Amino acid sequence: VRPLAISAFFVAWAALGCNGTSQSALPEGGVGSRVFVVERETESLAVVDIDRLEVVGRVEGLGNMRHAVMVFTPDLKSGYLATRSGQVSRIDLETLERSADVFTSMNTIAIAVSQDGRWIGTAEYHPPAVTILDAKTSEVVARHPGVTVRDGEEVTSRVTGIVDAPGNRFVCVLMDVGEIWVIDASRPDFPIEHRVPIARDEAYDALITADGHYYVVGHMGSEHVSVLDLRAPEKGVREVSLVDPSIAAERRGFTKVPHLASWTVARDKVFVPLVAEKRLAVLDRWTWEFIDSVPLVGDPLYAIGSPLQTEVWVSFSGEGVDGKVQVIDVDTLEVKRTLDVGERIYHMDFAPRGGRVLISSNAEDTLFVVDARTYEITGRVPIHSPSGIYGPWRAFVLGL
Amino acid sequence: VRPLAISAFFVAWAALGCNGTSQSALPEGGVGSRVFVVERETESLAVVDIDRLEVVGRVEGLGNMRHAVMVFTPDLKSGYLATRSGQVSRIDLETLERSADVFTSMNTIAIAVSQDGRWIGTAEYHPPAVTILDAKTSEVVARHPGVTVRDGEEVTSRVTGIVDAPGNRFVCVLMDVGEIWVIDASRPDFPIEHRVPIARDEAYDALITADGHYYVVGHMGSEHVSVLDLRAPEKGVREVSLVDPSIAAERRGFTKVPHLASWTVARDKVFVPLVAEKRLAVLDRWTWEFIDSVPLVGDPLYAIGSPLQTEVWVSFSGEGVDGKVQVIDVDTLEVKRTLDVGERIYHMDFAPRGGRVLISSNAEDTLFVVDARTYEITGRVPIHSPSGIYGPWRAFVLGL
Repeated sequence: VRPLAISAFFVAWAALGCNGTSQSALPEGGVGSRVFVVERETESLAVVDIDRLEVVGRVEGLGNMRHAVMVFTPDLKSGYLATRSGQVSRIDLETLERSADVFTSMNTIAIAVSQDGRWIGTAEYHPPAVTILDAKTSEVVARHPGVTVRDGEEVTSRVTGIVDAPGNRFVCVLMDVGEIWVIDASRPDFPIEHRVPIARDEAYDALITADGHYYVVGHMGSEHVSVLDLRAPEKGVREVSLVDPSIAAERRGFTKVPHLASWTVARDKVFVPLVAEKRLAVLDRWTWEFIDSVPLVGDPLYAIGSPLQTEVWVSFSGEGVDGKVQVIDVDTLEVKRTLDVGERIYHMDFAPRGGRVLISSNAEDTLFVVDARTYEITGRVPIHSPSGIYGPWRAFVLGL
Repeated sequence: VRPLAISAFFVAWAALGCNGTSQSALPEGGVGSRVFVVERETESLAVVDIDRLEVVGRVEGLGNMRHAVMVFTPDLKSGYLATRSGQVSRIDLETLERSADVFTSMNTIAIAVSQDGRWIGTAEYHPPAVTILDAKTSEVVARHPGVTVRDGEEVTSRVTGIVDAPGNRFVCVLMDVGEIWVIDASRPDFPIEHRVPIARDEAYDALITADGHYYVVGHMGSEHVSVLDLRAPEKGVREVSLVDPSIAAERRGFTKVPHLASWTVARDKVFVPLVAEKRLAVLDRWTWEFIDSVPLVGDPLYAIGSPLQTEVWVSFSGEGVDGKVQVIDVDTLEVKRTLDVGERIYHMDFAPRGGRVLISSNAEDTLFVVDARTYEITGRVPIHSPSGIYGPWRAFVLGL
């Protein structure tokens, strides 16, 4: 266990005063109807009421929003946003204002809330580290530099893919050295409880399944992912192939790797967009064996599963398919519908209970709302350069 | 489709003025940390902050709280409570005050919020009916008397088991005549779209699986339940047995029927407490075939599944086992732990992300908090005669 090294240089703490906005001045919706949409070009979040279909607030001065990620504390008091400029901002979900900013690094890639809601963990590129903050006060309480030992030598590595896991753990992965960390957030020094080696390096992203059972690491340019059973981390990772064995190697187009946030689980299946394959790989959720692959209209970018576990919706990138969304039936694995929504779809999410899908079209400066039953576009909210869509329902789900 | 008959007699509408409580006077937690606990004897709800472990508010004057049920709108603006005296109260989740009361009947048994969050449906014994209210204004917008036709005659029946279902439907069941109703809450007259007959009558309760696929009706004194596939309601119900075929009939103790809110689903299995059997029946989630039954320490009352799908917790009633909770491993179906909590456990629920279990002990006037990892009691909140526990996370889940 490394001693905590909290660098004053990287931790410039700034608590912002409450501006005293009264409750009566707030929009009439509730915490549950307000969704935060990343505005990539303006360092801001638009707050959209998804019932009234309008922007009801805006949080500004947030830093570099490319791949900005937002999480919510389970008390629904705060959202936390991590940005590529290293700024971690706390957003008050009642006043819709920034209530604190902390600079934990100069480049932060991922963020998570602990299972008990008390701690925020961030994974950082530069300087490489994991930082732990108190979710109530935003104070930095611990820091693990991205350092491990290989062949007797200390090596430094960027950290990514931090998630909350059962037992009040954080799990993350070193990018430049193959190693998964399991951090115990129930103990005051937040010790790194397990360091699980991975033979393959160049990890670029990771996910945890919603039941907290598996942690999956993707590797740059590789057809394989590393799967760790979090109930038996001492057994180490196993390698799982994403390629369809029925397709000859020379016809495979495995040139790019899918972002792991683009994966989804529905019923007993894991769905993985195979970029440059024009296919969606389907794996068994429990054994991680390859089941099948689904031919698609183009190169898939992002897959989301309905909360009702009946459908997976897939977005695309590339000429001719930009703006298309295909709906796959989870049981039959057939494409049941192809929709045209808006160009350059950057993100999608189902609203709770599965009745609506929110889709951000970056090129059309629009957040689209699609009725999940009729597949019709029922709402269009103008937003400048929208990207990630973060709803407060994530507060109640492990790993989101 | 019956014409809407809104009886002024039973619908005494009373909007309560906002008392102007300012935000600063409210407790420091957020909407997500405030849980509503039914206080059976005092016509009230205690509002408990589950992080601070204290009562932070109380809603009074709610009517007969025996089997009172609470639901939450997905915008997390309101909770709705239905009581046995027919009073339906709207509770403002920010001010923690009653904001409207409506008397939809003289005896209401069940309540649901539509998938789109716009409508509240109540199932009523007396007079028998389903009433639909506007979730924003609490105004009654439709009413279907509990009437159907059998052998050419109009017959009247109490209504129960109302739930929200995919496609913005309400589903409920007539108790005194075997018939399930599917109501379309997307059309202005809320038509009864399907009337599905059930050969067996004396329905006493019903549930919908969390994926919205099946509606299950229990029948008084019967070892069978009726299962309706909501994706194909025209195919009608099928009967499913709850008894373990490996146990001889003369040794079975099937004397009482389990309340269907006491069932739970984890992974591929449905867990059913068999009252007076000292067993938990395990059915296949997709085929509804009997898998196994788990021997327990006594007569089970209530089963809840961990959000992580690893464990089912079971409470008991009866001498010698009162206050015990058994933890069953979902994979091995073995009892992995037997806990002693508080006497006369009336309700249990997992907090979101599965880290804690809330347990109301009526005889000890206490809401217990149990750590789901260590199985230790970590909190005790004094509450007078606690019963049902309703957390706002239900807002985001179909059927709760």
